[in-house]
Amino acid sequence: MSFEILKNKIDEKNNPTVMGLDPKLDFIPTSILDAAKKEYGDTFRAAGEAIFEFNRRLIDAAADLVPAVKPQSAFYEMYGLEGEIALKKTVEYARAAGLYVILDVKRNDIGSTAEAYATAYLGATKLFDHSEKALEVDSVTINPYLGTDGILPFVKTAAEFERSMFILVKTSNPSSKELQDLVVDGKPIYRHMGEMVEKWGSEFIGESGYSPCGAVVGATHPAQLAELRVALPHTFFLIPGYGAQGGGAEDVKAAFDKNGGGAIVNSSRALMCAYKGKGDDDNFEKFTREAVIEMRDAINTVRGK
Amino acid sequence: MSFEILKNKIDEKNNPTVMGLDPKLDFIPTSILDAAKKEYGDTFRAAGEAIFEFNRRLIDAAADLVPAVKPQSAFYEMYGLEGEIALKKTVEYARAAGLYVILDVKRNDIGSTAEAYATAYLGATKLFDHSEKALEVDSVTINPYLGTDGILPFVKTAAEFERSMFILVKTSNPSSKELQDLVVDGKPIYRHMGEMVEKWGSEFIGESGYSPCGAVVGATHPAQLAELRVALPHTFFLIPGYGAQGGGAEDVKAAFDKNGGGAIVNSSRALMCAYKGKGDDDNFEKFTREAVIEMRDAINTVRGK
Repeated sequence: MSFEILKNKIDEKNNPTVMGLDPKLDFIPTSILDAAKKEYGDTFRAAGEAIFEFNRRLIDAAADLVPAVKPQSAFYEMYGLEGEIALKKTVEYARAAGLYVILDVKRNDIGSTAEAYATAYLGATKLFDHSEKALEVDSVTINPYLGTDGILPFVKTAAEFERSMFILVKTSNPSSKELQDLVVDGKPIYRHMGEMVEKWGSEFIGESGYSPCGAVVGATHPAQLAELRVALPHTFFLIPGYGAQGGGAEDVKAAFDKNGGGAIVNSSRALMCAYKGKGDDDNFEKFTREAVIEMRDAINTVRGK
Repeated sequence: MSFEILKNKIDEKNNPTVMGLDPKLDFIPTSILDAAKKEYGDTFRAAGEAIFEFNRRLIDAAADLVPAVKPQSAFYEMYGLEGEIALKKTVEYARAAGLYVILDVKRNDIGSTAEAYATAYLGATKLFDHSEKALEVDSVTINPYLGTDGILPFVKTAAEFERSMFILVKTSNPSSKELQDLVVDGKPIYRHMGEMVEKWGSEFIGESGYSPCGAVVGATHPAQLAELRVALPHTFFLIPGYGAQGGGAEDVKAAFDKNGGGAIVNSSRALMCAYKGKGDDDNFEKFTREAVIEMRDAINTVRGK
């Protein structure tokens, strides 16, 4: 099953963290931007080329250290077709470098439409007389507002293709409380959602003890992390909100199971922009490596590894 | 404001319905598929070309009758870059034909990521020294699980660019009840979400009385439609679930305000596939027109127009 693949990569590198790839142009060093603009002008093409070049060098810099990357689809979609091309190249490059790719798309829909999304990212698309993968990633994020109808097509496809998913349960942002913390029958909505995640994955639990249905739980809510870790024993966690959003190593400690497994912590800006203000933009890779190692070590300390 | 633009198109054509464009290959007449496959082989390119050709002819067939189209992004994303190209061509063709384009993407995220999605679909992307539209649609669907943080960037962009959005409130699928019908403080979640939609749009109410924050409410729940119409006086409704999903004209009657406005009803498969089983696939446009007219007349009867 797919989380065994991720677990092996985490164990191999002794690093339960994922590098987010959210390539806003503001994050990209001037030398890369200038080169792209010089070659392609002030165009979407130039933006796409700069994004891929930055990602490629970030992946080269960190591929021996991190088990996974998480491109955030929004930052590619905003550059239109050229952004989609940069995303595809990034995903292929990361997978060729042996990284587990979690595509942060937060997709959601029902029935045959959910099936189409599952096919697009986790499965293979039926063309005329054969099927082919449109974009090959290992895992996606999905939104559960529509209930079971919106989830099962992903579970089915993930099981068939050895993929996984992370379902939004308790997100890292301040207003997550507006809906997710409302109390029904003595329990907040995020607990109800968590129980549904356990149920959706229950038929597909792998040898590591985790099903392909993971959950997104923010680093900014340490108490809920601890509560959900106990309540959802078969659910692998993706933890956003570390670093730039304010979560630290102590905040994510409770996300890990008794073996120090069952969770992966994301950081995007703090790794991609580690070079900022250091006066040596052209060697940004060096600062990213340092930040990756620092984050790895801080989290390994709290998880006892 | 944007819903005034939609309202004018609805009034002009006396038709509060939107034609869904969910171009599964199964929906496309054989002659179009064969021609594409002959020219481009068994490839994503052929699929993309067939999809656009089908959409183009559907738009030509119905543009004088319907005010709007709703492409479902999943059915383009599953064909990768070629699907995205087909989507872009479809959107541009529909807008050039004077149609209001609601892109069904159900996007959702927080902070700067929500901003990126809003920019991608409703705004203009900052490149190096200028901004440019990546894909120009009039409205998108969005998912509110993340609360206010995930919505305000869309509201701000919609207000600036005269666009709109439809926020999922009570969806048409059977399992929508699992989360959306849970009761908090005596009211189901969908009512709480509905009240948030009213609040999010409250500063931007246009002369028609509607804010740019619309809501998705399924035709399959007539009682909730009636309840929400009363509770959300400034919220324009997008009603899926008509036709193939089982909703009929009587079911959507309560979605309209006292002037017969404030809502638009979607049908996809029943319009796109109206030709099936009629023995004249090459003239599919004729059957789509008939189905569009039949749906328009049935709904106009119940809304008193």
